[in-house]
Amino acid sequence: MAVDTGAFLARLGMLTTSDHTSVVSMNLFVALLCACIVIGHLLEESRWMNESITALAIGLCTGIVILLASGGKSSHLLVFSEDLFFIYLLPPIIFNAGFQVKKKHFFRNFMTIMLFGAIGTLISFAIISLGAIHFFQKMNIGSLKIGDILAIGAIFSATDSVCTLQVLNQDETPLLYSLVFGEGVVNDATSIVLFNAIQSFDLSHFDSSIALQFIGNFMYLFITSTILGVFAGLLSAYMIKKLYFGRHSTDREVALMMLMAYLSYMLAELFYLSGILTVFFCGIVMSHYTWHNVTESSRVTTKHAFATLSFVSEIFIFLYVGMDALDIDKWRVIRDSPGKSVGVSSILLGLILVGRAAFVFPLSFLSNLTKNSPYEKVSLKQQVTIWWAGLMRGAVSMALAYNQFTRSGHTQLHLNAIMITSTITVVLFSTVVFGLMTKPLVRILLPQSKQTASMISSEPSSPKSSTVPLLSNRHDCETGKGSQHHVPRPTSLRMLLGIPSRSVHHYWRKFDDAFMRPVFGGRGFVPFVPGSPIEPDVVQWH
Amino acid sequence: MAVDTGAFLARLGMLTTSDHTSVVSMNLFVALLCACIVIGHLLEESRWMNESITALAIGLCTGIVILLASGGKSSHLLVFSEDLFFIYLLPPIIFNAGFQVKKKHFFRNFMTIMLFGAIGTLISFAIISLGAIHFFQKMNIGSLKIGDILAIGAIFSATDSVCTLQVLNQDETPLLYSLVFGEGVVNDATSIVLFNAIQSFDLSHFDSSIALQFIGNFMYLFITSTILGVFAGLLSAYMIKKLYFGRHSTDREVALMMLMAYLSYMLAELFYLSGILTVFFCGIVMSHYTWHNVTESSRVTTKHAFATLSFVSEIFIFLYVGMDALDIDKWRVIRDSPGKSVGVSSILLGLILVGRAAFVFPLSFLSNLTKNSPYEKVSLKQQVTIWWAGLMRGAVSMALAYNQFTRSGHTQLHLNAIMITSTITVVLFSTVVFGLMTKPLVRILLPQSKQTASMISSEPSSPKSSTVPLLSNRHDCETGKGSQHHVPRPTSLRMLLGIPSRSVHHYWRKFDDAFMRPVFGGRGFVPFVPGSPIEPDVVQWH
Repeated sequence: MAVDTGAFLARLGMLTTSDHTSVVSMNLFVALLCACIVIGHLLEESRWMNESITALAIGLCTGIVILLASGGKSSHLLVFSEDLFFIYLLPPIIFNAGFQVKKKHFFRNFMTIMLFGAIGTLISFAIISLGAIHFFQKMNIGSLKIGDILAIGAIFSATDSVCTLQVLNQDETPLLYSLVFGEGVVNDATSIVLFNAIQSFDLSHFDSSIALQFIGNFMYLFITSTILGVFAGLLSAYMIKKLYFGRHSTDREVALMMLMAYLSYMLAELFYLSGILTVFFCGIVMSHYTWHNVTESSRVTTKHAFATLSFVSEIFIFLYVGMDALDIDKWRVIRDSPGKSVGVSSILLGLILVGRAAFVFPLSFLSNLTKNSPYEKVSLKQQVTIWWAGLMRGAVSMALAYNQFTRSGHTQLHLNAIMITSTITVVLFSTVVFGLMTKPLVRILLPQSKQTASMISSEPSSPKSSTVPLLSNRHDCETGKGSQHHVPRPTSLRMLLGIPSRSVHHYWRKFDDAFMRPVFGGRGFVPFVPGSPIEPDVVQWH
Repeated sequence: MAVDTGAFLARLGMLTTSDHTSVVSMNLFVALLCACIVIGHLLEESRWMNESITALAIGLCTGIVILLASGGKSSHLLVFSEDLFFIYLLPPIIFNAGFQVKKKHFFRNFMTIMLFGAIGTLISFAIISLGAIHFFQKMNIGSLKIGDILAIGAIFSATDSVCTLQVLNQDETPLLYSLVFGEGVVNDATSIVLFNAIQSFDLSHFDSSIALQFIGNFMYLFITSTILGVFAGLLSAYMIKKLYFGRHSTDREVALMMLMAYLSYMLAELFYLSGILTVFFCGIVMSHYTWHNVTESSRVTTKHAFATLSFVSEIFIFLYVGMDALDIDKWRVIRDSPGKSVGVSSILLGLILVGRAAFVFPLSFLSNLTKNSPYEKVSLKQQVTIWWAGLMRGAVSMALAYNQFTRSGHTQLHLNAIMITSTITVVLFSTVVFGLMTKPLVRILLPQSKQTASMISSEPSSPKSSTVPLLSNRHDCETGKGSQHHVPRPTSLRMLLGIPSRSVHHYWRKFDDAFMRPVFGGRGFVPFVPGSPIEPDVVQWH
C-alpha cells in the first residue's frame, strides 16, 4: 500500500499546479518572506541593519544554498520578471508612499523636490553618460552604441531611497524626509521616462528639435499622469461619499479604494503614461478626501493594509534581487575577464557618487536662495544627507538593465553580460555598503535625531509603525493655525516673491474648503468622529 | 511631431508589459470589479439579487460585448486558469471563512457537519455517477470511460454555498448557518480529494481492497491537513506572542499573519494534502489565538483586510465564470447537436436535485436522533433550506471540469465539448435560477429572518458588514456563561451519550484555559483591551 499511496499522492499535485517545482519555490519564497520579517524585527535595535539589507542578505544566503544544492546550475527560485515588478510590486509601494506622505511638507517643498527629482536626475544622467563614454572607450570592453551609453545613464540615475527612508524620521526631520522622499518618487518617474525616451528616439542624428520634442514629451507625461491620478482619487472620493458606503460596509469601501488605486495605475499604463506618478497622486488625493469619507474601521484597515502591502512588496523585491544576483549563467560569461567587470562596476560607482554630488549641492544652493527663513534652508549637513540618501541603486535599476541588456541574445553576448553583472554588483554594493553606513552617518550629521535614535533602541519601534500613526493626526499641522505658526508675517510683495509656495498653499486651502470639500468630502465633513483633535482647528479656520 | 509622439508613446508600453492587450484586459477587468461592487451595493435592497448574481450577470454582458466587438472570435478577457483559481483566489475565501466563523456553533455541530460534508458528498457522488451511467448510455453521446463517469460525479458533488451564505444570517439562524457553511467547506475538500483519487486510481479492476485504500487515504488526508493547519496557526500565535510584535508594528503583524496563512496552504499543496482544509483550520486557530496577541489596530485591519480579500476573490470568480461561459470555441463544437447538450444539462440538474435530497433528509433524521433539545434538532423547513443551499454549482465544479475534460485535445473532442458546455450550463442555471430563488425561499421557510430581512431593506446593510462585526464580540457566547445558558443540566451518563459534542466542547475549554492559552495567548492574556465586553465573562469563568 505504501507504494500505491505514494503514486496516489504524486497524482494529487496535478490538480492544483501542473508543476510541483513551482510549488516548492513558492513555499520557500513565502517562508523566506516570513523569516525576513522576523529577523528584521529582531535586528531592529542593531546600529547598522535595516529590513532591506536583511532581505538582501537572506536572499544571497539562499542563493548560495540553492547554488550548492543544484550543483551550480541555478541560484534563483523565480526568474526576475519585469512584469512582476512593474505590475504587482511597484504600485503598492508608490501608492502607499503617496497615501502616507505628510502632504503639507511635500507641497511646501514642491519646487525644490521637482528641481531635485527632474533637473537633478537629468544632470546625473548626463554626467554618468559622459563618464561612461569617456572611460569605457579606454577599457576596450567592446563597442557600446550611443543608445546603450545613454541607457546606462538612465539606469544608474534611478535611486532607491527605501534604505534611507527607513532611517530618517518624518517627525524629527520633516524637511529632509519630504525632500528625500519626494525626490525619490519624481526620480523614479524621470528615469523611467528618460529610459523609454532613449529606447524610442532615433539617436543617430540628434539635434535641437529632437531635444525640444523630448522636453515636450516629458512635460506632457508628467502633467497628464498627475491629472489622471488626481481624477481617479477624486472619483473614488465622490463615489464613496455619494453612495454612502460608509454607513454600511467596510469591506466594500476598502475593496473599492484598493481597486480604484490599482485601476489608476493600470489606466496610466494603458495610455502610455507614467503609472508611478499617477498612483502616487492618486494616493495623495485618496488620503486627503476619500479616507475621510469612510468608516472608522475602514480608515484603520486601509492605513495598515496599504502599509503592509508596501512593506511586503519591498521585502519581496530585496529578497528577489539578492537571490537573482548569484544566477550563475550571467557570471559564467564574464569568467574570463573578471577584472573588466570589477573595473566597470567601480567606474559606475564613482560616476554615481560624482553625478549625484554635481546636482545636490548646486541645486540646494539655488533652492536656498528662494527661501527667507533659515528654518527652511537646507544646511550643508542636510545636503550631505540628501546626497548620501540617493546613492543606493535598487530594483528599478535592475529592471531597466534587464530590459536594455537582455533583449538581444540574453546574457550570452559578452558586453551584455558585463553590463548585467556590473549592474548587480553596483546594486548589491551600494545597498549593502552605503546602506549599512546610512544609520551611523545620519546620527553623526543630524544630532537632533540621535536622541530619538537611542530612544528607538531602548524601546524598539519599527520605522513603519512610527510613520503610520501620523496619518490619523497629520492634518493638525495642515490647518491654517499650524501653517502660520512660524511665519515672520511677510509683506504682501515679499510673500509673493520670496515664498511663493507657501502663498500657493494658502490659496489652495481656501479653494479646498470652499469648493472641493463640499463635493468630495474630507475632514470638515466627517461628523461621526467626535473627540477628534482635528475638529477645533477646523472651527477656528472658518 | 504628432506622428513622432505617437511612435514614442507606442514604445513606452514596452517597458512595463510586453503585451499591450493584456494591459487592456486587466484594466477592463479591474473596472468591472469596481462596477460589480458599486452595482451590487445599489441592488442590495432588491428582493432577488445578490453580489454573486450581479457579478455573473455583468460577466455575461461583458462577454456578449466582447464577442460582438471581436466579431465572434472570443468572449473572455482572461483564459480560465486552474492555477489562478486554486493558488490565488480560493485560499483567501476559505481562510476568511475559518477566520470569521462562529467557532462555538461550528464545533458544537461538528459531527453533523462531517456527516453532511463527507458522507453526504459521497452519497451525492454515487447517485450522480450511477445516474450518469444510466442516462448517458441511452443518449448515444459517445463512449464515456468509467473514469469520466466518476469524475462527473465528483464534479457535480462540489457545492457552492456562497449565494446562500449571503442570504442566511449568522446571528438569527446560527445552527443553519453553521451547518450550511461547515458542510460547504468539508464538501469542497471531499469532492476535490475524491476527484484526485479517481484520476489516480486504476479503476479498471475495482475491488474491496482498493475501496479500503481509498477510505484510508481520505482519512489520512483529512487528519494530516487539519493538523498542518492547526500547527501553522499555533506557530503564528506563538511567534507573535514571544516576539512581542504587538508592542511595535501593526504592519509586521498583519504581514506575518497573512504570509503564515498562505504558507500553510502552500505547504499543504507541497505535501499533496488538502490546502482547503489546512487553511480553513489555520484560520480558526488564528482567530482563536493569534488574533488576541496583536494590537488593536492589527485586529481591525486583519478582520477587514481578510474579509475584503475574500469578497474581491468571490466577485472575481463569478465575473470570470460569467465571462468565460460565452467562449465561442466550446459552443462551436457542439453546434450540430444543441439538443444533446441541453439534454445532458437537464439530466445533470435533475441528478443534482435528487442526489442532494438523498442525503440531506436521511442524514438530518440521523442527526436529530442524537440530539435531545428540540432547539438543536433540524426541523423539516430547515432541512429544505439546507437542501436548497447546496444546489448551486460554482467555480470548483468549473475548475474540476476543465481539469478532466480539456486534458486530451482541449475542447475539440465532441464528448469533451459537450461535458464542458453542460458544466457551464449547470453552473449558470443553478447559480442564477436557484440563486435568485434563495432569498424569497429563505424568507418563506424561516419567518424569523423575515423581520430582519425587511429591516435590512429599510436600512440597507451588506451581508458582509453584518457578519463582520460579530468577530469582535463573538467570544462572548463562547465563554462558559454563554454556553451553559440553555443546557437542561443533563446527568453525567446522558451527557456522555446524548450530547457528546457539547461535553467535548466543555473539556476542550478547560484544556484550552489550562494549557493552550498560557503558551499561545488568546483572550485571557490581553491586558491592553480595557473596557472590552469580554473581560467580565473571563473573570466569571475562572
